[in-house]
Amino acid sequence: MKTKGEMTRAKILEAARELFNVKGFTATSINDLVAATGMQKGSIYFHFPGKEAIACEVLKDASDQFMAFLGRALGGDNPGASIDNFFRCALDKHLATGFVGGCIFGNTALEMGDSDPEFAGMIDQVFDEWISRVASVVTEAQKRGQIRTDIRYDALAKHIIATVEGGIMMSRLKKDERPMRECLDALRITLDLQV
Amino acid sequence: MKTKGEMTRAKILEAARELFNVKGFTATSINDLVAATGMQKGSIYFHFPGKEAIACEVLKDASDQFMAFLGRALGGDNPGASIDNFFRCALDKHLATGFVGGCIFGNTALEMGDSDPEFAGMIDQVFDEWISRVASVVTEAQKRGQIRTDIRYDALAKHIIATVEGGIMMSRLKKDERPMRECLDALRITLDLQV
Repeated sequence: MKTKGEMTRAKILEAARELFNVKGFTATSINDLVAATGMQKGSIYFHFPGKEAIACEVLKDASDQFMAFLGRALGGDNPGASIDNFFRCALDKHLATGFVGGCIFGNTALEMGDSDPEFAGMIDQVFDEWISRVASVVTEAQKRGQIRTDIRYDALAKHIIATVEGGIMMSRLKKDERPMRECLDALRITLDLQV
Repeated sequence: MKTKGEMTRAKILEAARELFNVKGFTATSINDLVAATGMQKGSIYFHFPGKEAIACEVLKDASDQFMAFLGRALGGDNPGASIDNFFRCALDKHLATGFVGGCIFGNTALEMGDSDPEFAGMIDQVFDEWISRVASVVTEAQKRGQIRTDIRYDALAKHIIATVEGGIMMSRLKKDERPMRECLDALRITLDLQV
């Protein structure tokens, strides 16, 4: 069971994650966190030295959760089915939020990519791990003839992830699932994906 | 010839565009503009009522320039060559900046997509125009057998733009041209693009 302190920390991190994702890191203030949690500023500072530290924890937690999500999403009956399942799970994840927030890693990549090398490095690690996990499923799918073999597995993995991120971006802008859904459907066809 | 007032306005807009693109809109302050232009705060406020108004002008100018860029980039000897040329010009554009800044529309889409409906609407119009221009070249390429025909032209256009945006995102994060280049090379192959 969580202690009261752990529960308070978790509450701050949850509110911060939502605020960072919707408003962006820079636009989120400690006062926003006070308003969102109903806590006093002093309690927030008791648990975290400042916004940067909260953001680091939020990204770490989001990364852990995302890797757990990837583990589930990439777990189909065979490699081709795993890639197909990943597309479906990614779409479902964003449908569930109505495309509010989008991808915290993509957002942070574009918000912090130039201005904050420490955050950029953290996000880069998430992308590298994501690419590497998708790439290993792609290799297996290539061995079984379930995906096209005329492009290297690692380039295909980056292509898949770029298209997913770009699809999320367009669907988030329009608050409409169609661009992301169409991008994923196009990927299934252009990759010769066999389930 | 530009008047002195027009030159001053242009100088403010140029500095603002660079700051917005690298730091994001929210993180940019009027004081940053003072530092970047060497102008006094009063002169900036003489030309613009505030940061929002500057951002609107920056987006409008960026949109005009981007449409002019698209006109040039999509102008090849035939539709297939035009799409190929667009890929090359997009990569060159970002190579020229060393992947600092990235795509101002993608960045603003992710920074403002949820928090500022007015900006989101402006960016959405840019994406719609971009999709529509690419889609009409794709239709022509399909008629000539220069691109795969088993996916609708408008879905292919979104797929192309999503992949370009995702590629820029990854290359910007890594400050490395390879992800974007690999995504574009993969697109040429997966789309069966004939030049």
